[in-house]
Amino acid sequence: MATKTMNDLLMATMQDVYYAERQILKALPKLAKASENEELKNALMHHREETEGQVERLQKAFEALGKRARGKTCEAINGLVEEGDEVVEEFEQGPVRDAGIVACAQAVEHYEMARYGTIVAWAKAVGAEDVARLMQETLDEEKKADSTLNQLAQRGLNQQAVKKAA
Amino acid sequence: MATKTMNDLLMATMQDVYYAERQILKALPKLAKASENEELKNALMHHREETEGQVERLQKAFEALGKRARGKTCEAINGLVEEGDEVVEEFEQGPVRDAGIVACAQAVEHYEMARYGTIVAWAKAVGAEDVARLMQETLDEEKKADSTLNQLAQRGLNQQAVKKAA
Repeated sequence: MATKTMNDLLMATMQDVYYAERQILKALPKLAKASENEELKNALMHHREETEGQVERLQKAFEALGKRARGKTCEAINGLVEEGDEVVEEFEQGPVRDAGIVACAQAVEHYEMARYGTIVAWAKAVGAEDVARLMQETLDEEKKADSTLNQLAQRGLNQQAVKKAA
Repeated sequence: MATKTMNDLLMATMQDVYYAERQILKALPKLAKASENEELKNALMHHREETEGQVERLQKAFEALGKRARGKTCEAINGLVEEGDEVVEEFEQGPVRDAGIVACAQAVEHYEMARYGTIVAWAKAVGAEDVARLMQETLDEEKKADSTLNQLAQRGLNQQAVKKAA
């Protein structure tokens, strides 16, 4: 096993989220289409636009490290996307499915928050301040996206889902 | 497709985390063994003990809903555990691997925080206050575990990993 450095670990994790963001780009429109609630559809499509910017930001971060942007299969995001597919398969269109979609999207946000939090810390540790700054912007967006979904759920989506079933 | 209710969605998500916790029980000792830093080893093994209590709490929650505890394959946790295995395969024992292990464990904590947060909200929505209370206890533990790992990383593990590589 070759001795690898913190820069290698940072690079591997950036490749992991680069792959993840591109899977998310594909998954979000499918989830939006499967949703019934208009606010949820809009929130998912708005986050798709943000995700495009996040992919660009990652490309800039790779560039800042003198590397070409490249993805590396991330089994965690594959599993998270699959959980969203399962909700859509198992629950018919309506408020209960919508509650499930919000939860799956929040699980994806939490994954990204963990990963970007780590990348910011490591970028600072190796002195890549420009990378840290770019990734902090994305981290803030992910936190906001999670909070938007949380508000949607708490403000009525969960209660609608309970009423629907009653 | 049969019409399913919020209770079905809650049950499916509890089965998902029940499976996840049991995978985590198996993964934590492997990660602890692969770590070099004593504090990290201890933190991982301490969280293993907590996880045993979390499995029991889930069993009580299933019971409170009149169901037997049962797991349902959770592809997200399978992927997250796999990412931990990859770090161990790709990085030799030492500070850089330790930093990678902390990050993978934090990604797992974030997944659990998302899921338990959802479960608490849904349990409240369907009026299962006892389930909400039990799962809130676990949610608080997961947040604390994440924060402990964060402190470990910030307090020196990341810097050790950078120095090792220099």
